[in-house]
Amino acid sequence: MTLTDAVVFAEHEHDRFLGEFREFLSLPSISTLSEFRPEVQRGAEWVAGNFRAMGMENVEIMTTGDGRGQPLVYAEWLNAPDAPTVLVYGHYDVQPVDPLDEWQSPPFEATIRGDHIYARGASDMKGQTHAFMKALEALLKTNELRVNVKVIVEGEEEIGSPHLAPFLREHRAKLKCDIALNADSQMATRDLPSIVYGLRGLAYFELWVYGPAQDLHSGLFGGSLHNPAQVLCELIAGMHDAEGRVTLPGFYGTVRELPDNERAELKLLPLTDENWAQAAGVNALWGEQGFSTIERIGARPTLEVNGLHSGFTGEGSKTILPAKAMAKLSTRLVPNQTPGQVQEQLVEYLKEHAPPTVRWELKRLAMGDPILLNRNSPYVNAAADALEGTFGVKPVFQLLGWSVPVTNMLNDELGVDVVVMGFGLPDDGTHGPNEHFYLPNYFRGIEAYTKFFEKVAEMRD
Amino acid sequence: MTLTDAVVFAEHEHDRFLGEFREFLSLPSISTLSEFRPEVQRGAEWVAGNFRAMGMENVEIMTTGDGRGQPLVYAEWLNAPDAPTVLVYGHYDVQPVDPLDEWQSPPFEATIRGDHIYARGASDMKGQTHAFMKALEALLKTNELRVNVKVIVEGEEEIGSPHLAPFLREHRAKLKCDIALNADSQMATRDLPSIVYGLRGLAYFELWVYGPAQDLHSGLFGGSLHNPAQVLCELIAGMHDAEGRVTLPGFYGTVRELPDNERAELKLLPLTDENWAQAAGVNALWGEQGFSTIERIGARPTLEVNGLHSGFTGEGSKTILPAKAMAKLSTRLVPNQTPGQVQEQLVEYLKEHAPPTVRWELKRLAMGDPILLNRNSPYVNAAADALEGTFGVKPVFQLLGWSVPVTNMLNDELGVDVVVMGFGLPDDGTHGPNEHFYLPNYFRGIEAYTKFFEKVAEMRD
Repeated sequence: MTLTDAVVFAEHEHDRFLGEFREFLSLPSISTLSEFRPEVQRGAEWVAGNFRAMGMENVEIMTTGDGRGQPLVYAEWLNAPDAPTVLVYGHYDVQPVDPLDEWQSPPFEATIRGDHIYARGASDMKGQTHAFMKALEALLKTNELRVNVKVIVEGEEEIGSPHLAPFLREHRAKLKCDIALNADSQMATRDLPSIVYGLRGLAYFELWVYGPAQDLHSGLFGGSLHNPAQVLCELIAGMHDAEGRVTLPGFYGTVRELPDNERAELKLLPLTDENWAQAAGVNALWGEQGFSTIERIGARPTLEVNGLHSGFTGEGSKTILPAKAMAKLSTRLVPNQTPGQVQEQLVEYLKEHAPPTVRWELKRLAMGDPILLNRNSPYVNAAADALEGTFGVKPVFQLLGWSVPVTNMLNDELGVDVVVMGFGLPDDGTHGPNEHFYLPNYFRGIEAYTKFFEKVAEMRD
Repeated sequence: MTLTDAVVFAEHEHDRFLGEFREFLSLPSISTLSEFRPEVQRGAEWVAGNFRAMGMENVEIMTTGDGRGQPLVYAEWLNAPDAPTVLVYGHYDVQPVDPLDEWQSPPFEATIRGDHIYARGASDMKGQTHAFMKALEALLKTNELRVNVKVIVEGEEEIGSPHLAPFLREHRAKLKCDIALNADSQMATRDLPSIVYGLRGLAYFELWVYGPAQDLHSGLFGGSLHNPAQVLCELIAGMHDAEGRVTLPGFYGTVRELPDNERAELKLLPLTDENWAQAAGVNALWGEQGFSTIERIGARPTLEVNGLHSGFTGEGSKTILPAKAMAKLSTRLVPNQTPGQVQEQLVEYLKEHAPPTVRWELKRLAMGDPILLNRNSPYVNAAADALEGTFGVKPVFQLLGWSVPVTNMLNDELGVDVVVMGFGLPDDGTHGPNEHFYLPNYFRGIEAYTKFFEKVAEMRD
């Protein structure tokens, strides 16, 4: 494949692009913590400014949720009358940084060690957002952009995109397109690109168990009333059976069984239990009996404890019987489960198993449907060609374990197919300390997105 | 009973005593948090200054643990050559105050609401320490002190008195006495005093479960490795059976069965399940099958979760699979269990039940033996007479659920009987928010301690 002017331009601008990327990473645009709201706003302004500088048109910082939501950046370039229109999605918000003391370098001072750049958001997903921004810049600066492009970069992905679906509905005409590209995704391995054709859904809860009116002296009251931390542990312990299956009533009732051809295809992915255990930093894996690791993380639903808190957790030996106990619990869902069903199943489980000696409360925090995408459109072929042209190998088709609710929203609200193509890696440490991005794939990402726009442009013929 | 000059003096000084008590309560002498060390020192200085002002002799702030421990205040008055010597024990240190936002008034600004004074340490045990101090002042100021008195007020009770036993051993000659009075105790109800003849022991641990090397994205890794928070919950859930019995192997093997006469005596205590549930603020009680509430909290061993922490516990829905999970666990022990045995049983339980997919670690935080005291000494009779003279009713004999390791240490190291007499109440909220002390019993406590010293003085005849 001959290199186009845009690809050559991007190669010449590596250093400047990297400097800009570091600046983007320095913004603590944490959307999950309300005190960071001004920083999220700064993130939006940075993205909008960058689009304006490169020559995107009608760049706008748009409000969401009637101003209660975080701002969303819109940009467009619609000067290819006969060509398709691509809607590109990214997000500029990031997760919190705790536990801060486990970071080897400050989370908002991007630091390069070896082939990786370390910072909160490096992989999820400022790296990829910035890569498609730079692909557009390269095409614009070389006058090679020959498709119509609309871009939305939101600031609420890490809280489950609560205002995005209404936003898409409200601006349906403005966002009309032929295909959507979601860049919030990852590769199979460093050198093996992938196209994601399915994403798991999410149902995230807080479960509270309430015991005595306040913390009590455990010597005085211990043994005479039901300890809410103990009850919480008992409830959580009962949520898996000895085979690693989730015990919520009816949990597997609507789960799509993996067809034999997909099961065979997943086996081709170069993921061994050994390298997966190494990526996780554990000696032994665990999971639902009867399924391989690659199936467990993409094709099967799961239930995880994301956090626990009760009583005294500071230094020393405070002898209290806690008044309450809390768990953050989330399930990852596969077609054809729905978050609403799972919530009902969890309530049913709690009604059946919570003892009458305590009170409990279930709070719903975030919800997203699972999705299966069309694997056979010409746009998917364009993406596959762009990836092969960049990496020299054909991409694999993958089911992704995480949830990107926007994929569903783009599909549902705009009625278009979605191509999911991104450049993160499973061991990038997203959401944890020392998140990082493999720098060579930041640059290959710019190249692949550039080639994708070029391939889609060819589709006009 | 005719009122003595000392009792009349104390009544006249109510307002001044109360003012002083509030000043004592304003000192944040939290011994469990190392950053409060200077405040603990101030607590010792306050107590020493008060003893000096009232006329106690050889008042001294003594170091413990070769200076690594918190200071202990010693005071004496040894001018009754033919009378017995009473060693009085109190502590001036207090528990931490969290959860701070549940306090209705600041924990170190003593606040009177109704008949109660609210502050950290009001009931455990600055109230009682100050009460016996004021009893001594009343006797000294009226020249009515006719027994020999040695007082130790320590600053490490809330961390399990780690340096007290060596201190008692080292100063055995200086602390020689005929009887020890431990004032860290409580009454049966507001108007029914009690003498405690047994205290439970304590074995307090931190259990850590370690999973992946760091927090991971729960969508990416969830379902493929064992979540340490889930494993911790499973381990804790397995520590009780369906009958509320502790399942650690051999846990009940050395437990002293309650003799029929003591079981009958405990039945006489005016504690109903209804008022106990009300004191705790729960709708229903819970506990080991086959035992009454009063037996469960005094005569039976228990295992409690004091705290839980894992993963993300802040606002919102951070989707991580945590790297580790921690529980604070403590057992209350009865004769003839020992903390060392229980530690071995817990390790055995963990070896048997912890799955090979995680690592675990058990840290020992605090230890104390259970104790049974002599109920039939003349000093116990003196205490019973003093209580009856003050409250107008005979005291009941009680097994106390909590641990006051010093009781054992006084018994073991000094070889004397210990009388346990105090004025807290079960619903004082000790160790929790809004700790309070029933003020009428602060004043009756002064009177009862005064009368106890007078009764012991009569024993010289």
